[in-house]
Amino acid sequence: MSNFEWPIRVYYEDTDSGGVVYHSNYLNFMERARTEWLRSLGFEQDELITNHQCIFAVHSMQLKFRRPAKFNDLLLLQSRITDLSGASFEFEQKIFRDDELLCEAVVKIACLNSTRFRPMAIPPSLLTEIQGAR
Amino acid sequence: MSNFEWPIRVYYEDTDSGGVVYHSNYLNFMERARTEWLRSLGFEQDELITNHQCIFAVHSMQLKFRRPAKFNDLLLLQSRITDLSGASFEFEQKIFRDDELLCEAVVKIACLNSTRFRPMAIPPSLLTEIQGAR
Amino acid sequence: MSNFEWPIRVYYEDTDSGGVVYHSNYLNFMERARTEWLRSLGFEQDELITNHQCIFAVHSMQLKFRRPAKFNDLLLLQSRITDLSGASFEFEQKIFRDDELLCEAVVKIACLNSTRFRPMAIPPSLLTEIQGAR
Amino acid sequence: MSNFEWPIRVYYEDTDSGGVVYHSNYLNFMERARTEWLRSLGFEQDELITNHQCIFAVHSMQLKFRRPAKFNDLLLLQSRITDLSGASFEFEQKIFRDDELLCEAVVKIACLNSTRFRPMAIPPSLLTEIQGAR
Repeated sequence: MSNFEWPIRVYYEDTDSGGVVYHSNYLNFMERARTEWLRSLGFEQDELITNHQCIFAVHSMQLKFRRPAKFNDLLLLQSRITDLSGASFEFEQKIFRDDELLCEAVVKIACLNSTRFRPMAIPPSLLTEIQGAR
Repeated sequence: MSNFEWPIRVYYEDTDSGGVVYHSNYLNFMERARTEWLRSLGFEQDELITNHQCIFAVHSMQLKFRRPAKFNDLLLLQSRITDLSGASFEFEQKIFRDDELLCEAVVKIACLNSTRFRPMAIPPSLLTEIQGAR
Repeated sequence: MSNFEWPIRVYYEDTDSGGVVYHSNYLNFMERARTEWLRSLGFEQDELITNHQCIFAVHSMQLKFRRPAKFNDLLLLQSRITDLSGASFEFEQKIFRDDELLCEAVVKIACLNSTRFRPMAIPPSLLTEIQGAR
Repeated sequence: MSNFEWPIRVYYEDTDSGGVVYHSNYLNFMERARTEWLRSLGFEQDELITNHQCIFAVHSMQLKFRRPAKFNDLLLLQSRITDLSGASFEFEQKIFRDDELLCEAVVKIACLNSTRFRPMAIPPSLLTEIQGAR
């Protein structure tokens, strides 16, 4: 199964007074990487809302913070699909600085109707692309 | 003209690796204080959207960062209206730690239609309350 | 085992264009609640750094996002210690809006040396207070 | 005087429930652009701290929010130095979406000692580069 890679630079806004990246910002980095993964498959989330009334919401996450990232680090986000159903999918996401694993997560994403926030089927055109990307 | 005061605690999320509050977070603190000022006048912004299709947007700001706030500081936000027209108003906002002035701003707020983002008149019931609060 | 409760108001800064609280901000809310829990036990984290070179870092988390919080919601954070060793402890944290459970997490916190980021023993005075709070 | 350009993508984390970029996040975008401008001159801020005990702090800002950016927009940050003294410099920064000006700022940056937060002279090697970049 193929990995999608996306680089992210750490800026001051991402750090805290402990001198390291504030823990919740890793989740923002992971969401940026998932957005870019979708874009790499040809799907823009604003168009998914407009055309399919479909948004993706984080259903659950398991996170391990292994080592701290610091200001100015250039991180590499690795994301791959590990599970897929008709209305949700699961990512494994890892954050590296060079060869060093800093943070890893399993993230379950649900496809929701954008107005009622109820589970809905992943649009078929997207489902096909995700299956192809595995 | 009366001052509205609102206390805000600095948490790790607000700081950066320089050991101080990251500068844009003072704007968040100021927005919290303006929200609580509106609430103190009896107006909830979600109801203003629902009932009047009215949102408040920051039009412009002048900011002076005088001294840094640090993790765990208990700050006091002082806010007062310094100008008022039919479709906008201006705040002076100051952030103190005890007697020490850390940051000050002049903030011009525009009343906008919540769907088209076009200027609209401040709802009369709110305008009356703001005039009374000056 | 006793629950520590802390109220948190949702401001615009916490929301996203989906109309709900952006998922990583729940982690910020949880960290605020843990900070206030420590304060309720008589411990300030800046003093723990100064006096004991001790900081607390999130080691791992399991998160379930059940229902979305919205702008202006007044949330209640419930936090309780579920496990305690000499160098780490585990929290269960839940976020409610009235009776509705919105988000829940199991959070493992490690006590680290504030300069070398290496595990260290929880200072005895704090360990005693945490044991008493269970 | 030459403009430094830096592209920034808008992610969900940057937006609020009004459907647009939350106003303080434009300041984060501007700080990213200033960081990349420094890097383009050959200076890394972590090395400036280590080698010169020098950090850059925002002294004051004037901001105009002209039009809202939205989720998924690809923004272009334009930054140029408009004033320079021995211990501070001033930027004009503009944020565009295609040809549309969304936000503009005048930002005064002070060079501070990284431990005492007192004004200090800009390191000569950097001063020379900034003068050359004007």
